[in-house]
Amino acid sequence: MSSYHPLTEEEAVELAKSVPNVLQPGQEIVCREIGDGNLNLVFHVSQPTTGASLILKQALPYAKVVGESWPLSLDRARIESEALQIQGKLAPGLVPTVYLYDADLALTVMEDLSDHVIMRRGLMEGGTYPKFAEHISEFLAQTLFFTSDLGMNQQDKKALVKSFINPDLCKITEDLIFDDPYTNSPNNSFDDHLQEEAQALWDDTALHLEVALLREKFLTHAQALLHGDLHTGSIFITPESTKVIDPEFAYFGPMGFDVGAVIGNLLLNYAGQEQWSPDESTRRERRAYLLETVRDVWTLFDRNFRQLWDESVMDRMARTQGYQHHYVRRLLQDTVGFAGCKMVRRIVGLSHVADIDKIPDPAIRHKAQRLALSIGKSLILRNRDTFSIDEIIDVADSAVQAARN
Amino acid sequence: MSSYHPLTEEEAVELAKSVPNVLQPGQEIVCREIGDGNLNLVFHVSQPTTGASLILKQALPYAKVVGESWPLSLDRARIESEALQIQGKLAPGLVPTVYLYDADLALTVMEDLSDHVIMRRGLMEGGTYPKFAEHISEFLAQTLFFTSDLGMNQQDKKALVKSFINPDLCKITEDLIFDDPYTNSPNNSFDDHLQEEAQALWDDTALHLEVALLREKFLTHAQALLHGDLHTGSIFITPESTKVIDPEFAYFGPMGFDVGAVIGNLLLNYAGQEQWSPDESTRRERRAYLLETVRDVWTLFDRNFRQLWDESVMDRMARTQGYQHHYVRRLLQDTVGFAGCKMVRRIVGLSHVADIDKIPDPAIRHKAQRLALSIGKSLILRNRDTFSIDEIIDVADSAVQAARN
Repeated sequence: MSSYHPLTEEEAVELAKSVPNVLQPGQEIVCREIGDGNLNLVFHVSQPTTGASLILKQALPYAKVVGESWPLSLDRARIESEALQIQGKLAPGLVPTVYLYDADLALTVMEDLSDHVIMRRGLMEGGTYPKFAEHISEFLAQTLFFTSDLGMNQQDKKALVKSFINPDLCKITEDLIFDDPYTNSPNNSFDDHLQEEAQALWDDTALHLEVALLREKFLTHAQALLHGDLHTGSIFITPESTKVIDPEFAYFGPMGFDVGAVIGNLLLNYAGQEQWSPDESTRRERRAYLLETVRDVWTLFDRNFRQLWDESVMDRMARTQGYQHHYVRRLLQDTVGFAGCKMVRRIVGLSHVADIDKIPDPAIRHKAQRLALSIGKSLILRNRDTFSIDEIIDVADSAVQAARN
Repeated sequence: MSSYHPLTEEEAVELAKSVPNVLQPGQEIVCREIGDGNLNLVFHVSQPTTGASLILKQALPYAKVVGESWPLSLDRARIESEALQIQGKLAPGLVPTVYLYDADLALTVMEDLSDHVIMRRGLMEGGTYPKFAEHISEFLAQTLFFTSDLGMNQQDKKALVKSFINPDLCKITEDLIFDDPYTNSPNNSFDDHLQEEAQALWDDTALHLEVALLREKFLTHAQALLHGDLHTGSIFITPESTKVIDPEFAYFGPMGFDVGAVIGNLLLNYAGQEQWSPDESTRRERRAYLLETVRDVWTLFDRNFRQLWDESVMDRMARTQGYQHHYVRRLLQDTVGFAGCKMVRRIVGLSHVADIDKIPDPAIRHKAQRLALSIGKSLILRNRDTFSIDEIIDVADSAVQAARN
């Protein structure tokens, strides 16, 4: 069973049995394929009598998005598996444990997180996650600092850059986030009522300049090993636990792209509260919670990152007075710009988010979409002038005020 | 003869004979090893009766600098050979032709350029090279533009980044250019009379901040395939011809590092004119020529680069209004900063230049060293505020005025 083919459920069960110390011999095993079939097969293998379970994730040699299909390298399974193992070492407990990786089958066998929910869904259902900001900021600070030239041997980093060259998956980001939304591309997909807003995006050359600069950073700035797709659909969560999954987009890029993905997706949910809060007072409360979370994610990340720097920086020149300040300020600015790009593309680009798209009433949906676009555009336009996370909170607050008037 | 060992002259001759269409059979062949023995063996193989000749360059598995020896990857021979071939395609006639590359022997057989002189020596001897600025700016614009995300397919570029990961050689630059000169490192080497100037470098935290930022760019900014060591000792020249050699430091880094290397080395010769001009009037003339060359190198590079951009840019977002201007301005700023770093390290760091070190009179040498340090420091300190090449000319001019007073 060593050369590549999509696994059957029977084969998945046999592979699951080969993992030591998880399933008990001689007990009933249940297997379900639970992937969405667009990029990967995902088998959930469990043993009802013992409660043991695990996940087998196998890459498919193509991507399907909204009916279209294009070939996609199986090498992404290696990248995902290796990234998970690096992240697991740097941020223990914050990613699923990898039990086994089979290169020929493009298969990773890992910890089952069915007791968690996908954070996007959790937020849509009104969940609060008091540990989230602490956990995700630790994940971000540890993985970004210790895979950068600040926190690891600079020659070893170059070898790691080499093994995380990820052209296929980077191209998806380059097209769908940093190009299509800013032109009348056939890849775009948006509600008819957004035609005017889309046209405004395509005509806004000041916005395009900022996007071009952020795109350039994504293409050239090999700062740290990124997760590369750190939206709230890549996070499994409970009130006590946070697990970051699916790092198949991992590559060496600008740190702010990961931090911005988290913040941008919190703000997409913030925009979606037009729907997900039952009344005005809940909505106000919910939005306050989300903005507090945005603030905490940055503030704790900032604190953790600087602490790692002070304790563990490996680059003598990086200890220069004023350099840390300069570095972290640019990191905030990148975060703001990338957060904005992440928001805009989810409204007019190919791939959307449930926080907005699942709003059934078109008028309410339109309001949420305009709010998300307004915040996203503001963040992109002001990214290079940002000096404090408070400014982001103000942007989000003002956008809601403006939408009300 | 396929597995690695340092070649004998006899073996070099046999290999030279195997290159088609260069040497004639049955005619006398002369072979001389002409390398300095620190990094490579270099065999000059020639045929006096026909005038045919070629060069065999073989990497040694170690580097020797000022008596010290450390291991160095033979992979640099592959990198040099592949870089030469890419550069030869992009800038025809501006690098030696590669006849043969033997991976096992870490050997490149290439065009003999004995009819050229090393530019550093040519400049020291008062040579003028009316075609140089045109040639080198074409080399820079072609090789940098077409190996960047602007001028090549962005997924193909990622594969090229992977094959030019060059940790050993990058480390030499990171240590010797972006670290040692700014601290009391045992790698440094300078005349006793420079103790005060060296101490001032080690204490200047404003300077260190700029160097830290430039170092970060060298470490993370994978903008284009650089030559990586483009000083005037890596250029063979005649009044009509320019050939760039020795790209073993090639890797994907910030474009300004190559442009800055050329400009910094012209300015080192400018500082050395304390010695190399026989009288004050020649000195003034010579310095005017060098500054004109600095200006032309930038101006022609700027023009060529923008022309390639206008004609051939492959990134839709890069056509955004204002982006080219923003990009080229940052490129000038990087050029200025890197030119400064290249100058400073040649005065107090491990590896020096003959333009300065071969000045026999210590007082004259000291004057030239102070001039080079003064220009280098100014360029580093003002790099992020530079908007025009005129400012560089002014810095160099003012430093000479100040030294006179």
